Amino acid sequence: MKSVKNIAIMGAGLVGSLLSLYLKKRGYEVTVYERRPDLRKTGAAGGRSINLAISERGWKGLAGVGLEAEIRKMAIQMPGRMIHDMQGNLNFQPYGKPGEAINSVSRGDLNIALIDAAEASGIKFIFNQRVLETDLAGTYAMMEDGNKGGTYKLQPDLIIGADGAFSLVRYTMMKTDRFDYSQTYEAHGYKELTIPAGPDNSFLIEKNALHIWPRKNFMLIALPNMDGSFTCTLFYNLDGEQSFKTLTTEKEVEVFFRTYFADAMEIMPTLYQDFFANPTGLLMTVKCFPWSHGNTMLIGDAAHAIIPFYGQGMNCGFEDCSVLNELLDTYSDDWEKTIPAYQTARKPNSDGIADLAKLNFIEMRDLVADPDFQFKKQIAAKVSATYPDKFIPVYSMVSFSNLPYSEALKEYRRQDEVLSAVLLLPEIREKWDTTYFQEIAGRLFNK
Amino acid sequence: MKSVKNIAIMGAGLVGSLLSLYLKKRGYEVTVYERRPDLRKTGAAGGRSINLAISERGWKGLAGVGLEAEIRKMAIQMPGRMIHDMQGNLNFQPYGKPGEAINSVSRGDLNIALIDAAEASGIKFIFNQRVLETDLAGTYAMMEDGNKGGTYKLQPDLIIGADGAFSLVRYTMMKTDRFDYSQTYEAHGYKELTIPAGPDNSFLIEKNALHIWPRKNFMLIALPNMDGSFTCTLFYNLDGEQSFKTLTTEKEVEVFFRTYFADAMEIMPTLYQDFFANPTGLLMTVKCFPWSHGNTMLIGDAAHAIIPFYGQGMNCGFEDCSVLNELLDTYSDDWEKTIPAYQTARKPNSDGIADLAKLNFIEMRDLVADPDFQFKKQIAAKVSATYPDKFIPVYSMVSFSNLPYSEALKEYRRQDEVLSAVLLLPEIREKWDTTYFQEIAGRLFNK
Repeated sequence: MKSVKNIAIMGAGLVGSLLSLYLKKRGYEVTVYERRPDLRKTGAAGGRSINLAISERGWKGLAGVGLEAEIRKMAIQMPGRMIHDMQGNLNFQPYGKPGEAINSVSRGDLNIALIDAAEASGIKFIFNQRVLETDLAGTYAMMEDGNKGGTYKLQPDLIIGADGAFSLVRYTMMKTDRFDYSQTYEAHGYKELTIPAGPDNSFLIEKNALHIWPRKNFMLIALPNMDGSFTCTLFYNLDGEQSFKTLTTEKEVEVFFRTYFADAMEIMPTLYQDFFANPTGLLMTVKCFPWSHGNTMLIGDAAHAIIPFYGQGMNCGFEDCSVLNELLDTYSDDWEKTIPAYQTARKPNSDGIADLAKLNFIEMRDLVADPDFQFKKQIAAKVSATYPDKFIPVYSMVSFSNLPYSEALKEYRRQDEVLSAVLLLPEIREKWDTTYFQEIAGRLFNK
Repeated sequence: MKSVKNIAIMGAGLVGSLLSLYLKKRGYEVTVYERRPDLRKTGAAGGRSINLAISERGWKGLAGVGLEAEIRKMAIQMPGRMIHDMQGNLNFQPYGKPGEAINSVSRGDLNIALIDAAEASGIKFIFNQRVLETDLAGTYAMMEDGNKGGTYKLQPDLIIGADGAFSLVRYTMMKTDRFDYSQTYEAHGYKELTIPAGPDNSFLIEKNALHIWPRKNFMLIALPNMDGSFTCTLFYNLDGEQSFKTLTTEKEVEVFFRTYFADAMEIMPTLYQDFFANPTGLLMTVKCFPWSHGNTMLIGDAAHAIIPFYGQGMNCGFEDCSVLNELLDTYSDDWEKTIPAYQTARKPNSDGIADLAKLNFIEMRDLVADPDFQFKKQIAAKVSATYPDKFIPVYSMVSFSNLPYSEALKEYRRQDEVLSAVLLLPEIREKWDTTYFQEIAGRLFNK
């Protein structure tokens, strides 16, 4: 690979925009090409979730380009989950220690802030530009110009595909030898709905929480917005007797919501309009490897799209940027060393968070009164309190630390194994809260 | 789906050709379109393995169209493996009971026999026809005519993609919603080599065996041909210190073969020519689902390509044909019922053989004197002899029965679990052959 001066980033989404700032700061000439129109002119990007939850890795990524403070002003702290049961009873469960919180932010506003900051630093963004093909060996990209029409050839020193879950750059890589690839859809889809603001932009339910209505096989969640509204998402089966397919009339939607989400329904005046106007989204996991070929590499969702149940998609993508930046430090901007080191280091972690996101979906739905699950959680909390150094909650590792995702997944499995063993102990249900039992648990965790 | 009369099969390989015979027999108008030239004119198909091992499922598939007897005449029985150790010592291990054998046959000859039979029954084969795109909803295929040039539109009632591991029909399906897909490459590649026939078409090593030179991280195998020659395949790492990358000169190949395959090398006069003329093949597993969309469906490798280490790729594809044929009986040729039933029934079995093939690769390489592995096999053989109804060897289930592959995989896992438990028994190494131990093993298998 010749010396890299000009870099073309494909995709002006969250990761592409943040990455452009990192690379510009290092002295590269960076241009960002985006397939869609400028979202500052057209409004929010279609087809994607409206809210995001920023946690530690996201903040670290933003801090690296000096944007943390600015974005914090746009975010609403959510220090825990507010569980809504079938009767409308509320139960607040903190995510971590006092002071720890994940943060609701608008995807569109965050993206605009990043693009504005990047343009202000001299990075060029060109919209309505679609990658048709990349020549992975020789580093050129054939582009389609949606503004003037026609196609043209681009020849930067390096092409970085930050073009999301349906990456066009990745599709070119699929034709190369030995490219491992998988795309897997969930049986669940999602639909976005709204709880509007109350009078004077007041919040109609608790502002500082991520609301969850867990119903075992499906769930509704709600995240607060700065204007007092909440963005709700219904996750539900795509097919079957209880599924989106059985919600085709207002009457069906009404009965469904009245049965399962009565308290939410009362504050959703546009429920039917939203339900039938908004598309049913699909949930896909993408894994692939390698993430590079010749002078082309993938980053963010283009390399590893995950499902949203750990709130880590964007956080993982931002961590991609800070990890890549650190490796460019390590290898003094020698991309021939940096790229292999990056993909080797990062792959186990993107696989790890993909798996954790799937596991967390099950946990979130199981927050419904599943006695075994709740008992296990009760024991876990007790063990964690007794042995804080031996039992770090995995949620905290993922959301409030920068420990590698792969280690968090390993820890999840270890804890699950030990907790399953603990549950087999005689008289556990009577004695779980005793010193005697705590000692046994401590020994199990020490193995 | 409207009533099906005309069926277009994409791919005149083994599965496409056999399927055409089944469908013609049921009264459909069948045309087979093949991307490559007619292999009866050009010789063997490029890039694919030269030999195949037909076992029970393959014979059943052929029997269903009355071709078993004819193909048996082209096949050489291999009732067991002939293991070659580093010193050139031989050890014959039967695959099953006396009379049971897998059967070496030339891929090209088998394919030609199938196409000849299909054409003789009135099925039209058109070669040099490439699918560009299929409209999955409306059932048309845009085809490129390699004979006359240009493209044309095909509108059969049903399109069946039997176009192999790199299926073009499947690529179109990838663009549809909710299509799960994975392609995974092995770290090993392969190279085909030759042991020529001796004087008067004699066999220079045992004719009736599948020869294996297991070397833990790599292996050489050889299958007999009707003309006295053997087709050898070297499976070796693609990268690393001991890999195809370190075999770039005649000297390097010589040292490698002299060290590991000395007895084979002596009868491979064209080793260097073969080694450097033949391509290094890649080994890929493809899994996907669903196998159908609108009036288009996939069959054989197009739906489920597997690695070759259980010798089941073709056998599985032929079983696809007989299973589909049986379901067409069940549903009286109602394709709208048959296709969903087919893919639901067949998917766990194609996944099962994919996993078994990966496990068998490890077993084949481990046939090298790994004492633990051999001890486990010894115990397994003993338990199987003592309790023939409780412990059916998995190799026999796969190769000498028509039991579902998914059940064979389940049985593999169960046996492995029990054998691992047996290995933990005190004094096992001294007492494994005693009645006392056999009783314990029997109880473990009874659980």
